[in-house]
Amino acid sequence: MDQNDHSHLNPAKGYSAINAEPRVRPDELAAFVENVFLRIGMDEASSKAVTRVMMHGSRLGVDSHGVRLLAHYIKEIDGNCINKQPKPKFTRTRPGAGVLDGDNGHGGFVATVAMDHAIALAREAGIGAVAIQRSNHFGAAGAYPMQAVEAGLIGLSTCNTDAFVHLHGSKLPFHGTNPFAIGAPVAGQRPWLLDFATSSIPVNRVMLYRSLGIGVPPDTAVDSEGKPTTDSQRATGLLPLGGTLFGFKGAGLGGLAEVLSAALTGMRASVDIPAWDSVGKPRELGQFVLAIDPEAFVPRAVYDGIMTGYLASLRGMEPAEGAEPPMAPGDREWRIEEERKLNGIPIDPATFRVFAEAGERFGLTPPKVLQGNA
Amino acid sequence: MDQNDHSHLNPAKGYSAINAEPRVRPDELAAFVENVFLRIGMDEASSKAVTRVMMHGSRLGVDSHGVRLLAHYIKEIDGNCINKQPKPKFTRTRPGAGVLDGDNGHGGFVATVAMDHAIALAREAGIGAVAIQRSNHFGAAGAYPMQAVEAGLIGLSTCNTDAFVHLHGSKLPFHGTNPFAIGAPVAGQRPWLLDFATSSIPVNRVMLYRSLGIGVPPDTAVDSEGKPTTDSQRATGLLPLGGTLFGFKGAGLGGLAEVLSAALTGMRASVDIPAWDSVGKPRELGQFVLAIDPEAFVPRAVYDGIMTGYLASLRGMEPAEGAEPPMAPGDREWRIEEERKLNGIPIDPATFRVFAEAGERFGLTPPKVLQGNA
Repeated sequence: MDQNDHSHLNPAKGYSAINAEPRVRPDELAAFVENVFLRIGMDEASSKAVTRVMMHGSRLGVDSHGVRLLAHYIKEIDGNCINKQPKPKFTRTRPGAGVLDGDNGHGGFVATVAMDHAIALAREAGIGAVAIQRSNHFGAAGAYPMQAVEAGLIGLSTCNTDAFVHLHGSKLPFHGTNPFAIGAPVAGQRPWLLDFATSSIPVNRVMLYRSLGIGVPPDTAVDSEGKPTTDSQRATGLLPLGGTLFGFKGAGLGGLAEVLSAALTGMRASVDIPAWDSVGKPRELGQFVLAIDPEAFVPRAVYDGIMTGYLASLRGMEPAEGAEPPMAPGDREWRIEEERKLNGIPIDPATFRVFAEAGERFGLTPPKVLQGNA
Repeated sequence: MDQNDHSHLNPAKGYSAINAEPRVRPDELAAFVENVFLRIGMDEASSKAVTRVMMHGSRLGVDSHGVRLLAHYIKEIDGNCINKQPKPKFTRTRPGAGVLDGDNGHGGFVATVAMDHAIALAREAGIGAVAIQRSNHFGAAGAYPMQAVEAGLIGLSTCNTDAFVHLHGSKLPFHGTNPFAIGAPVAGQRPWLLDFATSSIPVNRVMLYRSLGIGVPPDTAVDSEGKPTTDSQRATGLLPLGGTLFGFKGAGLGGLAEVLSAALTGMRASVDIPAWDSVGKPRELGQFVLAIDPEAFVPRAVYDGIMTGYLASLRGMEPAEGAEPPMAPGDREWRIEEERKLNGIPIDPATFRVFAEAGERFGLTPPKVLQGNA
């Protein structure tokens, strides 16, 4: 492949998923990850919640935020960033609002607890929002709206991260990739699930392209002077969604993540957050979750009818010549999930090495490679 | 200018604002518009609210949604789309949620009433959301978060519109330009105000480029087969924000506007909304507004400190070579507003003709052209 080949970028072809072999059974993978957390001293609630969030990524093909994060989390636990036995403290401040002090627990646990509170608030107040303080990296943002969806509600999660994304026109990075994930239930179907970074591509994608020796897509990345580049070797930062001409929109959305995750939580803006791989003390991240009860606005049957009608129209739209049939947010992920249920979850070689090390350290057997895929 | 000249697109240079002469005094302009509405039979509450929303556009340089909409609104009033004496009915369903039946009033009035209710809900519940039913075109989305901001709160508004924007890969349009506007107060300063369509450019921009004989920017528009084009004469639809490679993000945000404006209101998805210039009966649009009280989450001083610190960092970021200094959402608009306060609001020739016709019809004197700018 060369720097101008972007054929692998077609999202209909599952570009963000690892498709390499070997594969492992989802249940075995989940059990192994959870046991690593238990053996390292994390309490049961944290271990369970973090495993669910990581498995959300690995099941749905969001591999950048799946089990490959295990090495990073072990490093953060060993490095005293993450409290292994946190006692998060929730304060309900108003009928529809509350604050969760995460006690420096793992972000996957803290945000799960926060969304449970947001759901409870929304059931009563119609809408519920929880500002999260003193958290850590929360992994796949889409895992939290899924809690709301399973309760029949609409859910939203967002966070800010250390700075990787340039402003529309800045020499240096200023925002994190500051994702938003929103999920809405759909009667009798998998939900509508939108999970996106406010840059065009995530940082990990640049790293991947660099290691593959291929170029980054035009108008997505910049060099150390803030100048757009398609050379993955020279790319040091990302452009906001919308690129050089319309990046003010992506940068604005990145800013919205800052308003919600920093200004409403009392935590830090991206530009002041310690680097993602720094250890030694808690990173004290802010996050924000929200739930909406559709039945506070319309009868359930009305909501259901409009959602299913809208999605049937969307999926029935004729594709432009050469394009794949239009998909709703989440459709690609649910397709990958089905395929992986049948064939197992692919694990990259670096993550397998992490599993072997963790297995040895904690006396656990890593998940077996499935026959026929080895 | 030619089809490949996009130098006019630099947002730092105020590309969306009309800079042509002649100009008129803001107060005279507002009084004229309000009097047209009163003379055509609109009640005082509607006339005042709609004028404020149109003047938001004209004062801040969002001229596509400023007073140039007067002709369109007169047509809709004459065509029985808009109820001139609406009695909107608000039902508070939960502590933080409510539904407003707009009684087919002008969208600018109905959404203003809805945001007032959302603000009242948010003061009590911490967060308040109002689903709007049976409304009409609501003009500049940013006018509604400004109500929240003036009350010290964060505000959000969204709507869907008839279909102009293609899905990521569809042959025909499916979503409206489905905007989101979010405003957040900033102590001692003009607010942070993000107001954006979920396409890269608005429909009106294509029309403008066509009349100027210049091209549309790459990766923003498609022809009648859904194929990307930069030829403004052949462009019939828009691509979602993110274009051919990352348009699934813009399309997802457009879809979020549908979930909030249709599924939560019981109104129609974009693809089922009557064309914007159809008349004869109410369009029955759905819209959605939300307010958040920062003090439900953190003390005001904490919120203020983080917002002002974040914005000072942002505005202090060194620009990349050849770029303008980074701006926060709204900074361009506040600059235009100051300039127009001094020099008046520019009015395009077509809108002046509409003023002349309306003046004659209703016995009103159109705003005078300012000396030295004629």
